[in-house]
Amino acid sequence: MSKFQSPKGTRDFLPEEMIKRQYIIDTVRNIFERFGFQPLETPAFESWELLSAKGGGGEAIKNEIYYFKDKGDRELGLRFDLTVPLARVIASNPQLPKPFKRYQIQQVWRYDNPQSGRYREFWQADVDIVGSASMDCEAECLAVAGSVLMNLGFNEYSIRLNNRKILNILLSFAGVEKDDEPAVFRILDKFEKAGREETLKELGRVIGERKASDILGFIDLKGRPEELIEKIRKKLGGLSEADEGIKELEGIAEKAKAYGIRNISIDLSLVRGLDYYTGPIFEISIKAKKNVGSVAGGGRYDSLVALYGGQPTPCAGFSFGIDRLYDIMESEGMLDMSKIKTKVLVASVNESLRNDAIGIARNLRENGINAETDLMGRPLRKQLDYANSAGMPYVIVVGEKEMKENAFHLKDMKTGKEERMNLESIIKRLKMQEG
Amino acid sequence: MSKFQSPKGTRDFLPEEMIKRQYIIDTVRNIFERFGFQPLETPAFESWELLSAKGGGGEAIKNEIYYFKDKGDRELGLRFDLTVPLARVIASNPQLPKPFKRYQIQQVWRYDNPQSGRYREFWQADVDIVGSASMDCEAECLAVAGSVLMNLGFNEYSIRLNNRKILNILLSFAGVEKDDEPAVFRILDKFEKAGREETLKELGRVIGERKASDILGFIDLKGRPEELIEKIRKKLGGLSEADEGIKELEGIAEKAKAYGIRNISIDLSLVRGLDYYTGPIFEISIKAKKNVGSVAGGGRYDSLVALYGGQPTPCAGFSFGIDRLYDIMESEGMLDMSKIKTKVLVASVNESLRNDAIGIARNLRENGINAETDLMGRPLRKQLDYANSAGMPYVIVVGEKEMKENAFHLKDMKTGKEERMNLESIIKRLKMQEG
Repeated sequence: MSKFQSPKGTRDFLPEEMIKRQYIIDTVRNIFERFGFQPLETPAFESWELLSAKGGGGEAIKNEIYYFKDKGDRELGLRFDLTVPLARVIASNPQLPKPFKRYQIQQVWRYDNPQSGRYREFWQADVDIVGSASMDCEAECLAVAGSVLMNLGFNEYSIRLNNRKILNILLSFAGVEKDDEPAVFRILDKFEKAGREETLKELGRVIGERKASDILGFIDLKGRPEELIEKIRKKLGGLSEADEGIKELEGIAEKAKAYGIRNISIDLSLVRGLDYYTGPIFEISIKAKKNVGSVAGGGRYDSLVALYGGQPTPCAGFSFGIDRLYDIMESEGMLDMSKIKTKVLVASVNESLRNDAIGIARNLRENGINAETDLMGRPLRKQLDYANSAGMPYVIVVGEKEMKENAFHLKDMKTGKEERMNLESIIKRLKMQEG
Repeated sequence: MSKFQSPKGTRDFLPEEMIKRQYIIDTVRNIFERFGFQPLETPAFESWELLSAKGGGGEAIKNEIYYFKDKGDRELGLRFDLTVPLARVIASNPQLPKPFKRYQIQQVWRYDNPQSGRYREFWQADVDIVGSASMDCEAECLAVAGSVLMNLGFNEYSIRLNNRKILNILLSFAGVEKDDEPAVFRILDKFEKAGREETLKELGRVIGERKASDILGFIDLKGRPEELIEKIRKKLGGLSEADEGIKELEGIAEKAKAYGIRNISIDLSLVRGLDYYTGPIFEISIKAKKNVGSVAGGGRYDSLVALYGGQPTPCAGFSFGIDRLYDIMESEGMLDMSKIKTKVLVASVNESLRNDAIGIARNLRENGINAETDLMGRPLRKQLDYANSAGMPYVIVVGEKEMKENAFHLKDMKTGKEERMNLESIIKRLKMQEG
């Protein structure tokens, strides 16, 4: 065994897993494009100054990312999300027509403690709508997420919705200083995992016990939008930021109907960890055998582009965790597919027929069929063993008689059934099976 | 304008460029799969020990890569190619059936001096055949490369072929010490760019003038395989490593015919910079308006897997430079495509019809058509302006009369022509236009 492994928290994706991952990514990309989002890609690393800017990643991101200097002594870091790079792109490309709807499906890196389902290199699939302050954006984001999940085969999902504006009011109501807010949000973000008691203790350390318990007393509220909005209005109505937040939640709930979205609930305990959110925030969960948490989340961040020196530009978007989706679909048996992309091995009965096999494979490939020939100079039996262990669906055997008569045995490796056909019929048959 | 830019030597790919890049990558991926290669992905960074191992990246790679330590003080580096990670994967996964044919299309990073057409972050598309020592592998690699180029629209390309075994003999013939070989190969690799005189000077510094001029006297040989092989045989025949090398070149030239490959020449000045090659090496160039150099290159590296602690495993493969392909195709006008993936904007004449427009867009999307609606609450004229500046091919206008009569104007934004149709006919029309 090799002493060399992939670095801690990272993984290699061997073909069998990659084929499944590509299926997920291709589906996601298709649906993103269906809703009019366009592809964007940005570099793996960004300047440290960008990543750590206050109000973006913020100071706290320092402990969570891969930081390094290049040989020109520039401070750099691997990107920890796809939102900060987008905001930078928007800030320096004011010419882009608005709304600018982009998707981005790439890796991000966080120096987390690796644990089940958490990796230091993982893939995110983001959509964002740049340049519109309308709650239609949030509704469309929820619709995109729902459509992706349906197309991946999930029949049930639920959406939790909250608003940073309401949380802000709530915190200032409880007497929390502006400067403590990021820390409070980061603690509240782990509420579900940490539990009430632990959260109370953690919060108490930052803002004192009384304020901590005030906040926890309120964020327990959850329920259908109509009910919850009434409750929030009763408690906070009249305070201008709260009224705005309430109006936004109502706007999303109303528009969601036009988009055919159900299963929205408001959950005041939802905060999301990152500093840059300014309005509605949401997370989407799947009903699966084991509790898997959310598979997607996002919200509105209207200040980030200006923070990076661009025109003030409202933005909303969300992110799918591809690895999370993969893990759930795999454990739910939703990724039952061929473990190889090749359709057929063109085997040859002896050395002198190898070039004929190559010629037939060329013909198949020109017809769009994924085909292999023997590359090891193996006897026929070994070629069949390879086809079998590699999971090849079909084998064609090329012998002298077969070549002369243009009649080949097409062997279905699953059923073991063989059928004698000419090459044209084989092509027709295998083409029908494509896709 | 923002003060934040992408780091030196890296680029953002905005949608218009990304759509073209995706077209190239999708084509490459398709052809790779057509030949029976399976997808693999590996982490962006690897252990420094792996990257710098002698015989792999080698000591010299130190000045060319991004090196850093993680918070656990592990030495890491961004990968500089996709071959070293593959060899690591093979070394630690002996269970994989052989031949193992994999492709990998991902970024690599090199701390090069950025110049025209050279970037510090760039994309490679690799195929490799693992586990076979047969020259069929090299022939298949050349066939894959040719097929990719044909499918991208290149009608002419040329293949230059050489063999490290012959180069090794040549160097030992000239009296070059084994330890100096990597340095000599690295200098020879830049022969074409640096020119004869500069190369002579550089070489002289390492191995002395006489040896340098001996080597340069020989590597000028170029020509059709039949001729060149005779010349090499005359000069070096009888020396066992040279005979092996000659036999390999003959094997490739013979098998290439079965694969339908033309335009192979042997060029003894071809060396390729990296240390790990052990047999045939090759590069593929395109005839384009300006001299663009090679777009793909590769060769055989039979020692790398064992070097990383795996079973001795013969390997051969090659790499396309995606950025190089893109630059050539763009400058040759070969990437003439829609600058947006969206097919149609469903515009609405006023606020009260926005939900109807959303409903129609839902219907279109369910039929596989990429559709957008207004997200800015804009008047109709502004919606049309947006469709125009974004490059939207079609617009449907939704008004009250249109909804009542199920008869909409489908406007072709290129020709300006409008046609009145019901929604079912619009769907049929736009579906026909897909792909």
